Amino acid sequence: MARIRGNAIVGQSGGPTAVINQSLVGVIEAAQSSGVIDRLLGARHGVKGILREDFVDLFSQSRETLDEVALTPSSALGSVRQKPNPDDCYRIFESMRKNDVRFYFYIGGNDSAETVHIVNKAAQDSNYELRCFHVPKTVDNDLRVTDHCPGYGSAARFVASAFMGDNLDNRALPGIKINVVMGRNAGFLTAASALGRKWDDDGPHLVYMPERPFLVERFLSDVEGVYGRLGRCIVAVSEGIVDGSDPLKRTVAETMAEKTSKTLEKDTHANIQLSGSGALGDWLANVVREGLGIEGRLGRGLRVRADTLGYMQRSFPGVISEVDALEARECGRVAVRLAVSEDRDGSVVMLREPGDYRVRFDYTALVNVARETRSMPDAFISPEGSNVTDAFMEYARPLVGLLPPYGRLSGMGR
Amino acid sequence: MARIRGNAIVGQSGGPTAVINQSLVGVIEAAQSSGVIDRLLGARHGVKGILREDFVDLFSQSRETLDEVALTPSSALGSVRQKPNPDDCYRIFESMRKNDVRFYFYIGGNDSAETVHIVNKAAQDSNYELRCFHVPKTVDNDLRVTDHCPGYGSAARFVASAFMGDNLDNRALPGIKINVVMGRNAGFLTAASALGRKWDDDGPHLVYMPERPFLVERFLSDVEGVYGRLGRCIVAVSEGIVDGSDPLKRTVAETMAEKTSKTLEKDTHANIQLSGSGALGDWLANVVREGLGIEGRLGRGLRVRADTLGYMQRSFPGVISEVDALEARECGRVAVRLAVSEDRDGSVVMLREPGDYRVRFDYTALVNVARETRSMPDAFISPEGSNVTDAFMEYARPLVGLLPPYGRLSGMGR
Repeated sequence: MARIRGNAIVGQSGGPTAVINQSLVGVIEAAQSSGVIDRLLGARHGVKGILREDFVDLFSQSRETLDEVALTPSSALGSVRQKPNPDDCYRIFESMRKNDVRFYFYIGGNDSAETVHIVNKAAQDSNYELRCFHVPKTVDNDLRVTDHCPGYGSAARFVASAFMGDNLDNRALPGIKINVVMGRNAGFLTAASALGRKWDDDGPHLVYMPERPFLVERFLSDVEGVYGRLGRCIVAVSEGIVDGSDPLKRTVAETMAEKTSKTLEKDTHANIQLSGSGALGDWLANVVREGLGIEGRLGRGLRVRADTLGYMQRSFPGVISEVDALEARECGRVAVRLAVSEDRDGSVVMLREPGDYRVRFDYTALVNVARETRSMPDAFISPEGSNVTDAFMEYARPLVGLLPPYGRLSGMGR
Repeated sequence: MARIRGNAIVGQSGGPTAVINQSLVGVIEAAQSSGVIDRLLGARHGVKGILREDFVDLFSQSRETLDEVALTPSSALGSVRQKPNPDDCYRIFESMRKNDVRFYFYIGGNDSAETVHIVNKAAQDSNYELRCFHVPKTVDNDLRVTDHCPGYGSAARFVASAFMGDNLDNRALPGIKINVVMGRNAGFLTAASALGRKWDDDGPHLVYMPERPFLVERFLSDVEGVYGRLGRCIVAVSEGIVDGSDPLKRTVAETMAEKTSKTLEKDTHANIQLSGSGALGDWLANVVREGLGIEGRLGRGLRVRADTLGYMQRSFPGVISEVDALEARECGRVAVRLAVSEDRDGSVVMLREPGDYRVRFDYTALVNVARETRSMPDAFISPEGSNVTDAFMEYARPLVGLLPPYGRLSGMGR
């Protein structure tokens, strides 16, 4: 049982996911039944709400509201992209002390884990008793220690469905199609594009992830090879692919911006804005058009298109993985139980059991999750670097759930 | 009963939809039970397949295959964007005569109806007995006579869901967000962006359709007004919006391409390529950034993003309107019944009955549907031209079906 009793704060931070409110409702449910949390304050827009003492009373919400909010994508408390500086931290304690807050739950990615870590250390430094728990969420699936992250399964389901549909579209009206997928540092979400394949000739035929250097010449010959074989080609590209020809190892988005003299926005975590623009996809489509179409061997009439899947990947309602929703809920509950019953600080992790798909919920120290991210393991990327392996498919399938049916007329071949 | 007996051809043409194979399976089912169609030949890639005599035997498909294909988005027979010229028409008859084809069913939009119309006239001119039926489909919903088009309801469901999710995302991380929606000449699909609104402050807050001239200055003051009131703004823009400042009344995509010296592709129906690029959204985002952010009254830190919903709108699996799927199936069946039992040529139409939602299936002459399209009625567009009316919402809701649940925490207000 907890040595302390008092109020709790919960907040949501960073890019939303389709199941981030499952975790919020999990925190609310476990806090209500904890017996040691008097009030649960929902911080509006994460640390910004704590700094402004802008709170919502979460124990007064009706069961109907909670049930509906749990099914609603995107942070119901509002989100924020803000890393508290030392001055902010002092003010966060002021706010917490003033409100007799003894438990702090923060739902977010690695940047949010860092925020919790900083607040936790500052609490220890000032001998203020505060249990801090990070509840993982990220569509990028790039948090360390945990097998996978709540939010990934649903985003991966959206991406897999989008590519399944686009592959069918491209079969009907053949050409070269490039789709840009979210994922700043890790290729997990881009890799999910392969999960909807059913027949040997189904796309995506090429999958480029940030873990392998991207070379334009190699890309063009890959596309030409697939097009020569199938008369069409679907390409999945991570927004975070790294320019293999750049000595500074910057992303293609960055070196492209330099070449086309565009400026890119940055947030306070120094992350460059990659989403919310079709520029990378359009640039790659032009590279193909100019390299293979107009002057190249595939001829002037080559049909080349690009789509950027955009914010829909993280907030589309109605395309939610059931496993993901259940796990996100449980991560919220587990964070409260560990803080209250075991008097711990940390970050909730899911560890996969051997055999049929099942996870065990556990925790790890905040420092293990804060700031640093993880990439796709080598075993998930094909040797030539432009596709995923069966090992990835086995890893990701249970997280996404069964995809919609997809049939072909007999005699239609390719 | 038909005066003729023989084989039949069915083909699919133009941009795919999520339910175009429901219509195909409807044609197959009705043809099988017609008693006068000996073989049903599926033309691969529309008229291209007829010209090449590249056919698939559709009576030999298993029930399982047909059930699965019906649920699969995008033309299972392959599609084409090709308008037959007089020489093509001659060769189409050669192919039809040779294969004893007496019934021709073509599933597509207004361009496809024109193809059927040309083939039908040519058949009459050469005294070749051929029953021709156009089966409507288009996500644009711009065919004349019919109340709405198969394919629209599912695409509208996707767009409504996308905006519902994006509105939640934008509430969590406020800023200005522009989403570009398909629809070359008509605003129906862009208007569907409004169907997911639940609270007064829900987006899209501004909806720009091709039916009203688009003026940059007006757009900027509209955005500034919403942003001033709500601290955020979601904008739905049709890819086909018309530049109100252009004396030639070209689209913004065209005049933008001129300003940024880009070239746009055209298909053989002289339609300019609008989809498959993020250029229009990115250009509008820059207009806002430069007009209101950097120099303007909303300040340098203004968060402006654009997404282009892209091909997902017409081929995403798993986001299908049930009503749309059922109606698409019936349109295929009705085309065959009318050709066989009533010896007619024409295009299938759906006429809405008064009272609770219900349609009556009928037909109209091909000439009434070919080439010309229809726009949104004035009653569906708000007087100031940047929103939809309740009349539109009542028209579109039954076509889209119930959308996913969406809840808000009490106390979260805006």
